[in-house]
Amino acid sequence: MPADFRMKRLVQFAETDVAGVLHFSNYYRMMEELEHAFLRSIGLSVIIEAPDGTISWPRVATSCEYFAPAHFEDELELRLVLAHIGERSITYEVEFFKGTDRIALAKTTAVCCKMAGGKFQAVLIPPEIKSKLAKGRNA
Amino acid sequence: MPADFRMKRLVQFAETDVAGVLHFSNYYRMMEELEHAFLRSIGLSVIIEAPDGTISWPRVATSCEYFAPAHFEDELELRLVLAHIGERSITYEVEFFKGTDRIALAKTTAVCCKMAGGKFQAVLIPPEIKSKLAKGRNA
Amino acid sequence: MPADFRMKRLVQFAETDVAGVLHFSNYYRMMEELEHAFLRSIGLSVIIEAPDGTISWPRVATSCEYFAPAHFEDELELRLVLAHIGERSITYEVEFFKGTDRIALAKTTAVCCKMAGGKFQAVLIPPEIKSKLAKGRNA
Amino acid sequence: MPADFRMKRLVQFAETDVAGVLHFSNYYRMMEELEHAFLRSIGLSVIIEAPDGTISWPRVATSCEYFAPAHFEDELELRLVLAHIGERSITYEVEFFKGTDRIALAKTTAVCCKMAGGKFQAVLIPPEIKSKLAKGRNA
Repeated sequence: MPADFRMKRLVQFAETDVAGVLHFSNYYRMMEELEHAFLRSIGLSVIIEAPDGTISWPRVATSCEYFAPAHFEDELELRLVLAHIGERSITYEVEFFKGTDRIALAKTTAVCCKMAGGKFQAVLIPPEIKSKLAKGRNA
Repeated sequence: MPADFRMKRLVQFAETDVAGVLHFSNYYRMMEELEHAFLRSIGLSVIIEAPDGTISWPRVATSCEYFAPAHFEDELELRLVLAHIGERSITYEVEFFKGTDRIALAKTTAVCCKMAGGKFQAVLIPPEIKSKLAKGRNA
Repeated sequence: MPADFRMKRLVQFAETDVAGVLHFSNYYRMMEELEHAFLRSIGLSVIIEAPDGTISWPRVATSCEYFAPAHFEDELELRLVLAHIGERSITYEVEFFKGTDRIALAKTTAVCCKMAGGKFQAVLIPPEIKSKLAKGRNA
Repeated sequence: MPADFRMKRLVQFAETDVAGVLHFSNYYRMMEELEHAFLRSIGLSVIIEAPDGTISWPRVATSCEYFAPAHFEDELELRLVLAHIGERSITYEVEFFKGTDRIALAKTTAVCCKMAGGKFQAVLIPPEIKSKLAKGRNA
């Protein structure tokens, strides 16, 4: 599947653990960095101040499969596919490559929400956001 | 399902994000803290130095569903179930409760490995470890 | 110097790095956990909603000296001293012990601020907060 | 003071906290990323495998002053100065800029050590490393 967005990302020292590898939780942080970079690339942000409230995208489900470890100073390539755009949610898939080896595959589903004071209410994705997402998907 | 192990855990300030909630990646770190506390409670550790090498448990798959957000200083209760003990792997399920509300459900599958220099080789779970896990499961 | 507050804290797996030790940045997170636990112990929080705005305590200076490393599953004892209460700021010192060895000494100065939308304005410490801090200091 | 090395760095979502700002501990992680990028730029790494053991650079002291907050998606510029090269240690200073505003100043002193199994022994900085550092300083 051709990626909608790609990013190189070095494994940082603080992201490793005593087993000598990239800690499994940090794949999720990298995935999120890529997702946010993708949103910026299409003129969006994960937090958008709109006249009638703040729009954000809390996750309802995340997952990751790990095929091989990554190590300090490895340069990874992350490839994002916007797999699904629903009425109120979007689903991303992110592949992690180390050279030609696919070392991990992560997925996340995020819901479009009005946000206030740490509380969220799911809403329909506003048309102008949906349109930008759709264009980003085919970029 | 009755839990095999439980732990109270406060949401710390550094675990929150600008949306005002516990960042989604930190559920994975909490799940791991609980898993390691469970292993200690049955006389094990996630890193065991054995005569013929170091045994550790890298993840092959993790996932989490999020039902409601958690906030700074919330006291969560985490409940671990050792859902499956295989020949070379174990699968945990961890429920996150805030009061009586189940706010998240995480799963992880970890493989028993010989570890050296950031490399891993899957091995059969040694009988003495398997026995302790089985007892912990029914505790 | 007798401590005003103490806490046991296990070094968690995700807090270690490929050098096999507790990552130096995580002493700061532990220090903050202790500071917040101290504040709760005297009926305060690092974020207090007051009628005329939210009070919080951003840092203006932090530092740490490291005398010996800590490792995965080490049980540390953290000892907090409220070293100074000023008109608008407080200074903490936190000692990290591993058994009888003092392995680190951290300091932080935090300023009492009105907080809104990620912006801060320094204010005089409200008398009722100052009074609780003073009592906690001598506890 | 002219910088020996510079890096642009975006504030990531997971690095913020409920106060809406870059968490104070993450300045230290950014400082370390810059330090390691500097070492790579002069042909070094923070972990060097040498014939007679592994060389690494544990910290003996770190500190940071904070002048103004940073927020999600702020692009910061970090400027590193290799302030001192001693017999066994080096001291870095890192300035954090947001546009033309200097928002933080961090310092770290790291000691050249032989490293094995999470233990460290201070050693003289090997001449070939010292030479590369000196060149990097004047670059």
